Amino acid sequence: MAAKPDVQALLFDVFGTVVDWRSSIVDELTRFGTEKRLQADWAAFTDDWRGLYQPAMDEVRSGRRPWTILDVLHRESLDKLLVKHAITGLSEADKDHINRVWHRLKPWPDTVEGLTRLKSRFIIGTLSNGNVGLLTRMAKNAGLPWDVVLGAETARAYKPLPQAYLASAELLNLAPGQVMLVAAHNGDLAAAAKVGLATAFVARPTEYGPHQSRDFKADRDWDVVTDSFIGLAKAMGC
Amino acid sequence: MAAKPDVQALLFDVFGTVVDWRSSIVDELTRFGTEKRLQADWAAFTDDWRGLYQPAMDEVRSGRRPWTILDVLHRESLDKLLVKHAITGLSEADKDHINRVWHRLKPWPDTVEGLTRLKSRFIIGTLSNGNVGLLTRMAKNAGLPWDVVLGAETARAYKPLPQAYLASAELLNLAPGQVMLVAAHNGDLAAAAKVGLATAFVARPTEYGPHQSRDFKADRDWDVVTDSFIGLAKAMGC
Repeated sequence: MAAKPDVQALLFDVFGTVVDWRSSIVDELTRFGTEKRLQADWAAFTDDWRGLYQPAMDEVRSGRRPWTILDVLHRESLDKLLVKHAITGLSEADKDHINRVWHRLKPWPDTVEGLTRLKSRFIIGTLSNGNVGLLTRMAKNAGLPWDVVLGAETARAYKPLPQAYLASAELLNLAPGQVMLVAAHNGDLAAAAKVGLATAFVARPTEYGPHQSRDFKADRDWDVVTDSFIGLAKAMGC
Repeated sequence: MAAKPDVQALLFDVFGTVVDWRSSIVDELTRFGTEKRLQADWAAFTDDWRGLYQPAMDEVRSGRRPWTILDVLHRESLDKLLVKHAITGLSEADKDHINRVWHRLKPWPDTVEGLTRLKSRFIIGTLSNGNVGLLTRMAKNAGLPWDVVLGAETARAYKPLPQAYLASAELLNLAPGQVMLVAAHNGDLAAAAKVGLATAFVARPTEYGPHQSRDFKADRDWDVVTDSFIGLAKAMGC
């Protein structure tokens, strides 16, 4: 960290970096399907759901659609996929429960220990495309000890738009260089670096399960490159 | 709580309700003055500083001035008061350090235990006129276990404007009636109740020291009326 002595806050990408969304959702939907006697390929369903994530945000990023939080985008995608996968007979309460699986994602094994160590020395928070309500409930469910919940909703801009990063730093009264983005995705880090944030890459090579096609490793010399939040804590002197 | 079974989040007024701003600032400035060999009536100085709080926010509430965070308003007031109290010889770093005393306010004795108990069952967060950076650093300094930091800055409106309360509920995906405002100030609770929030009054009769002139007790039948966060936790079944 000699190169980044000014960092006061570490802000984290969440889906994939902090929590294992794919295994969490496949596991929970598989249990739900068994209880409800529903037949479906829940892994394919989960991958399809995540597949609609970027296109849904693109409608908002482009300005074709006014600001809309991720819970709403997730629900619209879910409704499409229930048709595509021919899953029928669910009540409104069932659909709402399924949609809120994103509030119940499980952390990677090293997440909570790493965050707890980092919290002793830095402000730690989210910088996620998830909405504040989603991230707050996820933190309570998973025991994530955030100091502050920031991201697309507080910035009114989805990553990787520059405003998502800059507004998050500004909300902490920090210059971009005093904030480090932690992410498992090179593209997210590239966008953050472009507007002046410090960067840490944490490899999560199983995020997409058998379909992982990229982000196996750092594709640039980010300020920190590691493979767990424990490694990150050590690199940051915690 | 039979009357308010739907409350999912407790959001707190901070200055006066969660932290004892007056004693904290008088104590710290007295120590600072001794170290720097400055002569001043620090209690009067502190009361004057708080006295400029509402007028400064009124400029923003009225629209006469664009959105401006509380750290900036505090600093402008500080600069005026250094002149009024004839305090000279301070460096820019000294003034910045004094201004950040608002980030280092001390909790009331029952605060941390009460919040910790409430956190087990509810989302707990701020709904303060303080800015996010101020509130986040205060929480780290004082050990306040917030789930989420909300308030005027995330709403872009100072209390008691309706938007301050409504935007905070919306950021949690909650209806106003699912959020309880906790405050030591009847006026804050009245504004929150008017837009549908549940209300809890916690008496802090020494907030203004010898100058306390109101808010000794609840002036309405708020949903909860108590004199500590322990009492609040009990009333909420925690």
